[in-house]
This record gives sequence, structure tokens and C-alpha cells, in this order.
Amino acid sequence: MNQIRRLPERARHEVEVLHQILDATKVGVLSTVADGLPWSVPILHARLGDRVILHGSTGAGALRHVAAGAEASYCVWILDGIVVADTLFDSSATYRSAVLRGRLRQLDGPEASAALVAMSDRLIPCRSREVPPPVKKELAATLTLALEITADNWTAAVQTDGPEEPNDPSQWTGIVPVRQHHGPPQPSQWADGLPVPESVRALCGDAE
Amino acid sequence: MNQIRRLPERARHEVEVLHQILDATKVGVLSTVADGLPWSVPILHARLGDRVILHGSTGAGALRHVAAGAEASYCVWILDGIVVADTLFDSSATYRSAVLRGRLRQLDGPEASAALVAMSDRLIPCRSREVPPPVKKELAATLTLALEITADNWTAAVQTDGPEEPNDPSQWTGIVPVRQHHGPPQPSQWADGLPVPESVRALCGDAE
Repeated sequence: MNQIRRLPERARHEVEVLHQILDATKVGVLSTVADGLPWSVPILHARLGDRVILHGSTGAGALRHVAAGAEASYCVWILDGIVVADTLFDSSATYRSAVLRGRLRQLDGPEASAALVAMSDRLIPCRSREVPPPVKKELAATLTLALEITADNWTAAVQTDGPEEPNDPSQWTGIVPVRQHHGPPQPSQWADGLPVPESVRALCGDAE
Repeated sequence: MNQIRRLPERARHEVEVLHQILDATKVGVLSTVADGLPWSVPILHARLGDRVILHGSTGAGALRHVAAGAEASYCVWILDGIVVADTLFDSSATYRSAVLRGRLRQLDGPEASAALVAMSDRLIPCRSREVPPPVKKELAATLTLALEITADNWTAAVQTDGPEEPNDPSQWTGIVPVRQHHGPPQPSQWADGLPVPESVRALCGDAE
């Protein structure tokens, strides 16, 4: 495993790239080690400043394990495209990815509450303006963890290269973009006819 | 970590669900343990029958580590939607995910070559009909690994539930679907005017 040793001016630029990658995806894979074996779970995240916030039920095994101090890694990726070259070998993908490593810190009390509200607002923009704040019982049932972004606990990769010049000029080569979008909001059976809230319209990208 | 103890008739149905999840995504996170620490990398995969095939450069550290026999887990996920409830606490996501565990087996010779061609054909449908087969030098530079799907080395989760009935009937609740699609193929500078091959049109979903 490579430790990253960067010049400060390089790190400043690169940490912005890391932030962008974390902000471009809502889900990652939390990995830890139990009894010497790897243990991975997919989990929602939100970046708040220099912290990645994860949350889940207090009954969630892997979360409890890292909350108790087990070493963790957190990996996110975005597949941006499939690179079609003139050989199978040179075909590949364009992507962005990041891996953070370290121990997570459990948040409690007002710090946990604030992080959960801010996390919700990242996942559904400004949703906290429309609904009541978390209550004690909800907070007690939620494990809230923070993974700090430090100078040397992460790697980020951005691969945007298309195919090289083909050996056979009659071969089509290029990139097939992979994109994610939100479909139209689907109201629950109790929401028929109700106006779609601002937060949901913002999530779908059509807020004013 | 839960061992799965299923009845055979249940397992048969569920392994189809696992196959569908693996087939619905091209990327996952390979995790292993080195010096007691978790080590994770995002990586392309293809399912071929009861095996998940991973490949990469023979220089790739994490792949080399699992090829040498280190225990691994492989985690895939698909975010299907954001569940908007009437509280932050009850808001969540719809998703499909799977985690496989075990040791990977390195493939060599004709077995590796066949797996790589089949994997390419999964990533870009039937691409191998349009380009030359892998040559010796390419095969020598590629590490090809298989993770067997057995009766008890995986878990799969499918969460499709929408929000519960809201306490406040004036609150909109529902699901915002998250979807992935392929954009129009972008030709390289050498492919301008060349016809888009069948494989690429199939990938984009507009093949005849």
C-alpha cells in the first residue's frame, strides 16, 4: 500500500479532486478486518468539509465494528465511460475513484445530530427545511461516524484517456459515456396530488 | 460476519438474484487484508456462470496480493432510488447489493484467454467478433482471477421499499429513481465518419 508523500501545493489541488469525487457519488464501500478476514458493506456517505460521514443502524455489524476502533477503508468510484479500443487488451474505462483509510470516530450528542442533518441535506438538498429535526429516539437508534480526510490517508484517481491510435484505421474506436440521472419523482400512495417539495425538485435538477 | 445457511430451494432462487445483481453492474470493490489493514480497490468484473472474473495489470498491487492467496471480499452495489420520507430518519435508499468472500484463483493459459475474451464480451457485447484475439504478450501482461460463487460465500440484498405512511398527510413522500444510461458513442479522432460497430450499438441498447 502506497503512502502518499505530496508537496503541499500539490495536495491542495488534489484534495479538491478528492472532494469532487466524494461529492459526485452517494454510495461507497466500507471495508474493515474481522478475525483477519476482509469485511465489506456498501453504505451511503456525505462529505462535510474534511470529514466523510457514514451512518446506519446501531445494529449494523460492520459499522459497530469500525465504531469500536477497527481499521477501515472507504472506497468510492464513478464509472464515466467504456473505452472501446481496437484490441480487447487496450479497451478499458474512464472513471473517477478514491480510497480513504483510517479509523472512524463515533459522533454523539449535538455533533451527531448536526452531522446527520447536514448529511440528509447533501443526499436530498435542503430537505431539513421541510421536515422536523431528528428526535432523541431516532438519534439513539443511529450510529454516526466520521472519517477524517488528512494529508496522507487517501488516494484519488481520475482516468479520462480515450483509446490510442488504432493499428487498423478501419476500426471504429472511441468512448461510450456512462451517465447517471434522476427519473421523475414517484409519489407514494399518500402523496398523490401533493406538490413535489423543493428539495426533491432540487435533487432532480429542476429546481428554480 | 454471518454465514448463510439456506435451504437448497431458497438458495437456487437467491443465486439468480445474485447473478442479476452482478450482471447489472460492471464495477465493484475488491477488498483484502495486508499487514492487518483493509486494502480496497475499485475494479471491473464480469460474471461467467458461477465465477466472477476480475482482471488487471500484473503490476497491480492489490490484485497481486489476492492472486498470492490473500482472503478477499468483492462488493457490488446499484443505487436504484432515494426514498423521501416525512422524517430524515426514515428517508433512505432503494438499492441492490452483493458481497462475495473467499480466495481468488489465478487463471492461466487457454483458461485465462477464454475468460478474458468472455469478460470483454460482457463489458462490450460480442466485441471479440470485431477485433483480433488476445496475443501472447497481452496475456502475459494481464492477471486474470476468478472468484467462485459457492453455496455459502455470499450475501445479496434487494431493497425496494418506499416510505411508510407519513404522520403529516400534507407531506409529499415517495421515491426519486436513480438511473444509469449510455450516452451517444463518442468517436476518437481516428474514427470520424466510420460506422459505429454492432458491439458498441448493442452496449448503447440500440442494436437491431
